[in-house]
Amino acid sequence: MVYYDYSERKWQLRCEMCNEEFGGRAAAWICKECLEKIHREMDILKSDISFLRLDPPPPVTSSASASSGLVLLQSAVNSDGAFASVPVDRVVLVSRSPVFKVMLDTDMEESRTGVIKIPDASPNVLQSFVSYLYTAELNLDEDIALDLITLANKYQVVHLKECCERYMACNVTLDNAIVSYAFARLHNAKLLQDAARSLIIENFLTLREGEDYKKLLKQDPHLIVELYEAYFTNLASTKESNVEV
Amino acid sequence: MVYYDYSERKWQLRCEMCNEEFGGRAAAWICKECLEKIHREMDILKSDISFLRLDPPPPVTSSASASSGLVLLQSAVNSDGAFASVPVDRVVLVSRSPVFKVMLDTDMEESRTGVIKIPDASPNVLQSFVSYLYTAELNLDEDIALDLITLANKYQVVHLKECCERYMACNVTLDNAIVSYAFARLHNAKLLQDAARSLIIENFLTLREGEDYKKLLKQDPHLIVELYEAYFTNLASTKESNVEV
Repeated sequence: MVYYDYSERKWQLRCEMCNEEFGGRAAAWICKECLEKIHREMDILKSDISFLRLDPPPPVTSSASASSGLVLLQSAVNSDGAFASVPVDRVVLVSRSPVFKVMLDTDMEESRTGVIKIPDASPNVLQSFVSYLYTAELNLDEDIALDLITLANKYQVVHLKECCERYMACNVTLDNAIVSYAFARLHNAKLLQDAARSLIIENFLTLREGEDYKKLLKQDPHLIVELYEAYFTNLASTKESNVEV
Repeated sequence: MVYYDYSERKWQLRCEMCNEEFGGRAAAWICKECLEKIHREMDILKSDISFLRLDPPPPVTSSASASSGLVLLQSAVNSDGAFASVPVDRVVLVSRSPVFKVMLDTDMEESRTGVIKIPDASPNVLQSFVSYLYTAELNLDEDIALDLITLANKYQVVHLKECCERYMACNVTLDNAIVSYAFARLHNAKLLQDAARSLIIENFLTLREGEDYKKLLKQDPHLIVELYEAYFTNLASTKESNVEV
């Protein structure tokens, strides 16, 4: 949008989406037809999503039993010996996860008994996991996100894993960067790994004085070597580009 | 994009989406951040959709039998007495259609027998219907679109109905405008109805000489009255705006 700013006594430009002034920022010129088209397309995509969401199963109970056609997911046993079960629809499991698909489509114990044990999940995490399989929606906090990355990696639910990784990548700080990096490497979480590594490299000299560095050095020195290598590769490419300038 | 057109010897503007010249068309100015954001959002929406799509059941057979936890949808009986059955997952039916939800959640015959008869559907149409319930995807032609609007209206699958209506609305011509209007009114298909009516009003004096007009006049004179009223309302508002000009 172009308008005349009387107080500044000059023509101003505002972005027609965020309504912010351009200032020195770059602008794209889009014809109105394209803009309307992209909004229509987004509306259609959103309505596809709301159509495709399934009614999720009822909340976790400890008394649920497998009824016909359903599979039971069972959480880890608590310290008091109790565990939680969630009845889930077979079609949801096989559509969302290639691991569940093999379990249920071939002659494995899970397909015979209709029970899949998820030993790494608390009842809470199990509920979030199932809910996501039905709706692709989540309320995330840091603990749940980490547990879900573990589960999603194990059962190859790539979409859930990426969703949690994006959340965690936005929440990487100097306080958790090294722990996040080690976690991401363990669970093959590429997005989170890249975010954590970038932050570590930028602050490498500070972080290598901290406790997390020392712990990781004891637990897994290979990862520390990786970080050194990344730091020096970055240093070299920065120098090169400075020389070019 | 702004560039200097040497052949025309002047500055030109192109839309950064469709790459067409603006000419006299209106342009919107969008900052690059917003444009990138909207593309990222669209990518996420698309990946949500591909995650939420379910593996559809196997193609229609005439020998399928209801296995545990599944419901059978049965098509209309053909002239040779055969019909087709498709096994479908209960969770899909109840999530997509409030009519199926009532059938299957309350003590009705369908919930007891696990069989839902769809008397208005050929095997082909039944297959497309089920496939859409699982995937929100369709290969449409005019005949299938009309049959699916009928089914989607009956079972209140609004999303499918709108998808078929959008397709039909793009395919309304002078040859089918009156038939389309009558069909849309019968099945409460608002989008298609509006598209057909607009075309009819623009060409009312021609169309009222045609066969379809005469047939509809016999079958349902109320609809013809509606069209006359719409035509004159439009005429009046056009005159008014001409006067204003």
